[in-house]
Amino acid sequence: TAIPVLDHGFIRVIDYMGDDSAVVQAARVSYGRGTKKVSEDSGLIRYLMRHRHSTPFEMCEIKFHIKLPIFIARQWIRHRTANVNEYSARYSILDNEFYLPAPEHMAAQSASNRQGRGDTLDAETAQQVMELLRDDAARCYRTYEHLLDTDKGPGLARELARMNLTLNAYTQWYWKVDLHNLMHFLSLRIDPHAQYEIRAYAEAMLDILRAWVPVTAEAFQDYRVGAFTFSASML
Amino acid sequence: TAIPVLDHGFIRVIDYMGDDSAVVQAARVSYGRGTKKVSEDSGLIRYLMRHRHSTPFEMCEIKFHIKLPIFIARQWIRHRTANVNEYSARYSILDNEFYLPAPEHMAAQSASNRQGRGDTLDAETAQQVMELLRDDAARCYRTYEHLLDTDKGPGLARELARMNLTLNAYTQWYWKVDLHNLMHFLSLRIDPHAQYEIRAYAEAMLDILRAWVPVTAEAFQDYRVGAFTFSASML
Amino acid sequence: TAIPVLDHGFIRVIDYMGDDSAVVQAARVSYGRGTKKVSEDSGLIRYLMRHRHSTPFEMCEIKFHIKLPIFIARQWIRHRTANVNEYSARYSILDNEFYLPAPEHMAAQSASNRQGRGDTLDAETAQQVMELLRDDAARCYRTYEHLLDTDKGPGLARELARMNLTLNAYTQWYWKVDLHNLMHFLSLRIDPHAQYEIRAYAEAMLDILRAWVPVTAEAFQDYRVGAFTFSASML
Amino acid sequence: TAIPVLDHGFIRVIDYMGDDSAVVQAARVSYGRGTKKVSEDSGLIRYLMRHRHSTPFEMCEIKFHIKLPIFIARQWIRHRTANVNEYSARYSILDNEFYLPAPEHMAAQSASNRQGRGDTLDAETAQQVMELLRDDAARCYRTYEHLLDTDKGPGLARELARMNLTLNAYTQWYWKVDLHNLMHFLSLRIDPHAQYEIRAYAEAMLDILRAWVPVTAEAFQDYRVGAFTFSASML
Ligand SMILES: Cc1cc2nc3c(=O)[nH]c(=O)nc-3n(C[C@H](O)[C@H](O)[C@H](O)COP(=O)(O)OP(=O)(O)OC[C@H]3O[C@@H](n4cnc5c(N)ncnc54)[C@H](O)[C@@H]3O)c2cc1C
Ligand SMILES: Cc1cc2nc3c(=O)[nH]c(=O)nc-3n(C[C@H](O)[C@H](O)[C@H](O)COP(=O)(O)OP(=O)(O)OC[C@H]3O[C@@H](n4cnc5c(N)ncnc54)[C@H](O)[C@@H]3O)c2cc1C
Ligand SMILES: Cc1cc2nc3c(=O)[nH]c(=O)nc-3n(C[C@H](O)[C@H](O)[C@H](O)COP(=O)(O)OP(=O)(O)OC[C@H]3O[C@@H](n4cnc5c(N)ncnc54)[C@H](O)[C@@H]3O)c2cc1C
Ligand SMILES: Cc1cc2nc3c(=O)[nH]c(=O)nc-3n(C[C@H](O)[C@H](O)[C@H](O)COP(=O)(O)OP(=O)(O)OC[C@H]3O[C@@H](n4cnc5c(N)ncnc54)[C@H](O)[C@@H]3O)c2cc1C
Repeated sequence: TAIPVLDHGFIRVIDYMGDDSAVVQAARVSYGRGTKKVSEDSGLIRYLMRHRHSTPFEMCEIKFHIKLPIFIARQWIRHRTANVNEYSARYSILDNEFYLPAPEHMAAQSASNRQGRGDTLDAETAQQVMELLRDDAARCYRTYEHLLDTDKGPGLARELARMNLTLNAYTQWYWKVDLHNLMHFLSLRIDPHAQYEIRAYAEAMLDILRAWVPVTAEAFQDYRVGAFTFSASML
Repeated sequence: TAIPVLDHGFIRVIDYMGDDSAVVQAARVSYGRGTKKVSEDSGLIRYLMRHRHSTPFEMCEIKFHIKLPIFIARQWIRHRTANVNEYSARYSILDNEFYLPAPEHMAAQSASNRQGRGDTLDAETAQQVMELLRDDAARCYRTYEHLLDTDKGPGLARELARMNLTLNAYTQWYWKVDLHNLMHFLSLRIDPHAQYEIRAYAEAMLDILRAWVPVTAEAFQDYRVGAFTFSASML
Repeated sequence: TAIPVLDHGFIRVIDYMGDDSAVVQAARVSYGRGTKKVSEDSGLIRYLMRHRHSTPFEMCEIKFHIKLPIFIARQWIRHRTANVNEYSARYSILDNEFYLPAPEHMAAQSASNRQGRGDTLDAETAQQVMELLRDDAARCYRTYEHLLDTDKGPGLARELARMNLTLNAYTQWYWKVDLHNLMHFLSLRIDPHAQYEIRAYAEAMLDILRAWVPVTAEAFQDYRVGAFTFSASML
Repeated sequence: TAIPVLDHGFIRVIDYMGDDSAVVQAARVSYGRGTKKVSEDSGLIRYLMRHRHSTPFEMCEIKFHIKLPIFIARQWIRHRTANVNEYSARYSILDNEFYLPAPEHMAAQSASNRQGRGDTLDAETAQQVMELLRDDAARCYRTYEHLLDTDKGPGLARELARMNLTLNAYTQWYWKVDLHNLMHFLSLRIDPHAQYEIRAYAEAMLDILRAWVPVTAEAFQDYRVGAFTFSASML
């Protein structure tokens, strides 16, 4: 039951360990015999979230299988508190699949935000852009196949030939992370400052979060995603 | 089913995720379509261990409940690649339990190894040492109880009173780690250079490892524990 | 020039790398040719802090020599994103020095906060508590010395004898951390929820922070320490 | 004084903290008064390396400015124990520079090693491959420029346009790491199993290592790079 993301990507839960009750259980180790007062589980989880007592959330773990464009994988991998095994393009041949933005996501450079996109392109321009992207990706892939060809081509090493692919080629990996660091990832990547394409994955993972640890997900929504911090000088 | 360790300690598996086949599964993501050659699972695990391809071993996770003396907890916590929730002596009262070495583990300072123990003490001396340790621990604990007493004592804050306990008092925690870093922990802590008391826990965990991931445990034994490295100048 | 903390502790800067300008320099790598707009350094640092762009702050590093009571070292070491070398009580003999709270820090258990202290004890009770703490620590230390004695005592291994010391004995270590994780440490440990004794160290380090990276320290004060987060439901 | 690597890349030391003597200094904290026996610094460093006492090596830190092809950056970034700030292709425009292997590094896929290269291509074939790579990279870059063009092109957002570049485009970053994890990186990346292009950087860094911490570098060479581990069953 993989959740489709973008045109050829997906995200799929492989396994997980623990849930809301495992967070509570770990917190109760700390509080020992003294826990009667914060006895309601949901209250305890909200308390931990509010006070940034993050270590009980590290007691849950989840493992995903993800297929995603390389330029998004490059943003994703910057989150170091995770475990990763990626498809090896030294070992195997990458598929002939490329991310091509849907027309509604084809946007011009933002004038106000140097690191973001602005207005959507008109339908015709979007179509032209799509064709340019497709043509270059396809041509590069044909060259890649030719380079690898041991019969009619030079039989170039896979680890070299792959450099001819464009950054919208798809890769895949197993990605395993604890619940605390997953929420840290989500808080940075569902944010409007994050690029749409990684946000699409983050949104899918937020749905998974809600199904997996509903109480934690609600506290996360309340104290992280929807929260607002006033600085000392604002107060 | 807690495994007893030392006089009052224990180690108990709370949960785990993945096993030998999860290591293989993750490695196969990397190798993609090209895996036929190393098709035998055990061979692949041994290959990964031999070549220090450690990330597939990070795909398994295990969570323990551990009770251990504080001076051993201080060694253990130095392993940073784990998740921990410890009993809080600010929040709760520690039990009246102390580690007292069994006579066969009462040893003199080693003459040759500044960081280790040498000959076992004779029975009578061992008995005397045990009594000295017990008396001090017990007296300190009585003072602790008195300090906490809000009735006949000063009702001192728990976070302060605990400083009167000796380092052989027991604490407990949940400790969660991935398989790669668990083996790194074990390789350092079942080593003869490690202090006997932490080795006792490591040995119990090695048994758990063997039951949990038998193929990985055997490769670990072969390529880490029982291996020997020759330096360039020795070769 | 060690800064004294508590009765026998201290904190001393051994070395550091980078300062405010190194944060800016690293951020400018990201922004490349496009940096003209946020050209003012202080504005850029404040922008990074506000938007939790924490990686440029990881580009500075600082190394301390710290002497601290063991029960505080146990809290401190929970911060895993640091590098540590601690005095070895397996290898060497610990000094006859113990933390004894000053009368103004001798407080009763808080009635409202299970994990904190409440009213200060009256002078006489504080004095009595101090004597109880001192007597037990001193007696335990005398036993420790006797246990180590190869002449008139059993010559017990150092790694065993140390278990007889109380948790207010002092240890020391080198502790090295990057600027981002130092601020994370400080935000948790100068907080009123943190125990007074670790707060005393955190306060001393905050002074060091102000001298080392004044612009960053001010932004930290404004956006972390003095800030307040409103949850979604509060807003 | 940047060291050139590959056709357009480089590696440059920005700053560092500590050297061989800082390793020794940190180790001596652990050994306290007991250090007289291993008094010779070089002997102590070799002892630490041999016994995998890695934390004293974490006390040194080094920061590089590196320019490298994206497909190599993707391998490099898998080393999580480092601090990174990368040039942002969301914020700025990437240069028109691509890695093109020199003829002597144009090699066919290895027949025996699925993850490596075999025989060098003959001069003519190498030349043809180079032209194919150059043409595709150049054409993709021209499209990239056109896509960004707000005048004659669609003015596509930079974060989207960049997906049209090939994986041999160059990026750059600041990369900071401690000495222990630098050696871990080097041991994996100067290894013959590593791809030539990342090995080229690792070799340049090994030279830097030798100049920076000569005693550590020699111990590293002796106990890691040039060492050989015999498994239990081999022994
Ligand atoms: C020849 C070669 C071939 C490779 N082939 C592949 C491949 O096909 N597919 C693939 O995906 N990768 C591949 N890799 C990458 C490899 O799996 C590692 O990701 C990379 O070598 C970094 O090693 P590391 O994890 O030890 O380093 P670091 O990330 O620097 O970690 C060093 C140590 O720190 C600890 N650590 C750091 N971060 C964490 C964390 N978040 N969780 C737990 N422990 C942590 C671990 O103990 C780790 O060993 C290959 C590497 C080499 C050298
Ligand atoms: C007031 C107070 C009360 C506390 N009470 C208790 C208690 O009762 N019981 C108890 O056990 N602890 C208690 N703690 C300790 C607390 O749970 C944390 O261990 C400590 O504050 C360190 O925080 P940290 O994990 O964010 O820091 P660091 O370990 O420095 O980590 C910083 C960040 O790096 C990442 N990270 C680093 N290492 C890992 C890793 N191995 N795996 C995954 N992510 C990693 C995480 O994102 C983490 O948030 C208390 C702390 C405070 C301040
Ligand atoms: C016999 C013995 C004697 C010892 N004596 C002493 C002593 O006298 N004094 C003393 O202080 N310690 C001593 N230690 C502790 C030792 O220095 C280590 O702290 C401990 O063994 C944990 O090892 P580790 O750092 O490899 O494990 P982990 O902390 O689990 O780390 C595993 C790997 O992950 C990476 N990593 C994780 N966190 C970080 C981080 N924050 N920064 C950079 N890299 C990171 C590193 O590559 C590291 O090797 C001793 C240990 C043993 C086994
Ligand atoms: C909108 C946006 C724009 C961005 N723009 C850029 C850009 O222009 N250039 C750029 O280079 N990056 C950019 N990034 C990436 C960003 O700098 C982070 O690398 C990324 O968000 C991962 O965050 P993290 O480090 O908190 O996560 P993780 O790596 O998961 O770390 C979580 C926490 O663990 C601790 N930690 C983990 N590993 C280490 C370690 N090795 N050393 C010290 N502490 C550690 C730290 O406390 C850290 O905060 C951007 C990110 C976002 C969301």
